[in-house]
Amino acid sequence: MLARLRTRTSTTVRAGEVHAGDDAAVLLPAAGMLLAAADVVVEGVHFDLSLGSTADAGWKALACNVSDVAAMGGVARSALVTVTAPERTDLDGLYDGLLEAAGSYEVALVGGDLSSGSLLTVSVAILGETGGLAPVLRSGGRPGDELWCTGPLGASAAGLELLRRGGSGPLCAAYLRPRPRPLEGRLAAELGARAMIDVSDGLALDASRLAAESGCGLVLEHVPVAQGATLEQALGGGEDYELLFALPPGSDLSPFSERGLRQPARVGWLTGEAGERRLGDEPLPALGYEHQV
Amino acid sequence: MLARLRTRTSTTVRAGEVHAGDDAAVLLPAAGMLLAAADVVVEGVHFDLSLGSTADAGWKALACNVSDVAAMGGVARSALVTVTAPERTDLDGLYDGLLEAAGSYEVALVGGDLSSGSLLTVSVAILGETGGLAPVLRSGGRPGDELWCTGPLGASAAGLELLRRGGSGPLCAAYLRPRPRPLEGRLAAELGARAMIDVSDGLALDASRLAAESGCGLVLEHVPVAQGATLEQALGGGEDYELLFALPPGSDLSPFSERGLRQPARVGWLTGEAGERRLGDEPLPALGYEHQV
Repeated sequence: MLARLRTRTSTTVRAGEVHAGDDAAVLLPAAGMLLAAADVVVEGVHFDLSLGSTADAGWKALACNVSDVAAMGGVARSALVTVTAPERTDLDGLYDGLLEAAGSYEVALVGGDLSSGSLLTVSVAILGETGGLAPVLRSGGRPGDELWCTGPLGASAAGLELLRRGGSGPLCAAYLRPRPRPLEGRLAAELGARAMIDVSDGLALDASRLAAESGCGLVLEHVPVAQGATLEQALGGGEDYELLFALPPGSDLSPFSERGLRQPARVGWLTGEAGERRLGDEPLPALGYEHQV
Repeated sequence: MLARLRTRTSTTVRAGEVHAGDDAAVLLPAAGMLLAAADVVVEGVHFDLSLGSTADAGWKALACNVSDVAAMGGVARSALVTVTAPERTDLDGLYDGLLEAAGSYEVALVGGDLSSGSLLTVSVAILGETGGLAPVLRSGGRPGDELWCTGPLGASAAGLELLRRGGSGPLCAAYLRPRPRPLEGRLAAELGARAMIDVSDGLALDASRLAAESGCGLVLEHVPVAQGATLEQALGGGEDYELLFALPPGSDLSPFSERGLRQPARVGWLTGEAGERRLGDEPLPALGYEHQV
């Protein structure tokens, strides 16, 4: 796998990575804590080659892993990419998408595996650094904390629907080439975010997870809906990869706009009543993508 | 994925692993270099559920990754496990095998992903430490170095043939539950091994890889054939996961038996004539499992 990637670019192994292409990659992580996550995208589940390209699948596989590290306030550094592919697969296209995302998010592809298989799957394991900050867990939120979201939601789900009807445009790009938010996650950590999660399975479910891990109740008062998406898609669509984080009330979020990042939207707050789940005055609808776990 | 594993055992996250079950696992690696590798096992390619169990598949997925770290002289510490599984899959059996191997090789399962998919694939990314020693690459061999192998070869291939004929016994276990050699790899590194590789694709191919990466020629003079296996299976069968390493001539290997490990067999040496590939006085046959890369 890596041998094939190496023939495509000499820049996938950067400073900090000592050696790649042996039985294992040798890395020199900065002293301190290491973040590790793995996510897989599967043909027919996470992508559909009649709607997007193999390059899109490669992009998404890396992007959703970058998002996992971003949601801890960390910086993604290295990735191992494991592919199972039927014979017909456009592997060059797949690597195009992987390398594009790796370049965009400054992640070195340091190893992996490639096997034949009757189904195209792209499994990425990503390593990141905390860079001296404590990692932001899901569990650190406290009653009264305000919840902020880095961007509007539902575009990915709306884009998928549009693609299925033969449409195109920015909404479709949101589905095919989701953009994780590593700079925003890093800044949230710097500003003292007490809990964070990426909105990969819909705001209703991911906010509920953050609240549950923090032992808190949840009130959503404002759902930022992407243009062209519905409230239901924003609450339950998933794959938006915006970040949701908890800050003490009165926190100053102006550094976002000062750094040229989109100003996060305040979507609600955590309460002291564990198990409470409200959208305004109503019960929060049970929307969202539940994994087969 | 991890949530499911956590319900099975509370011991998968050990000291050294700060936190698991968030968007990313938080690890505290020992200072120094980190080893990272990924290998996937795929139904119909690396295992056959009509011949072995899903637990065997889980074992093999972790074992082949442990072998990758062992082949660098490192110690495997943590693994991320990503599974795609059809609905019918015996996930509990799969986790049994993963946990058994994780326990045997003292690897903490710290994260991963689970997705539905029409094909059972088990993709593992493993992290290991070099523990103060330089990692042993494939490329450090020099002309005159002797090549040593940690055990007899061909048992896995012979076991697969036996299973296909409805047989059973130790040869079959060698195929279904391969045993990587982390203690042997560590000791080889301590003894100053200049190059090392795990014999996953057959001795002929893997020894040739080590020689090629070292810029050397290769002469094999003795192939240790497992009882019940053929010379061809030893040279080309693969999946034995013994280690092959290069040491300067006259090296003392008695620490192997002193530590209760099998004494490695001397299988040949490296020469100064790059491209030379001999088995005794004959050309080395082009056997071995070439990946689709």
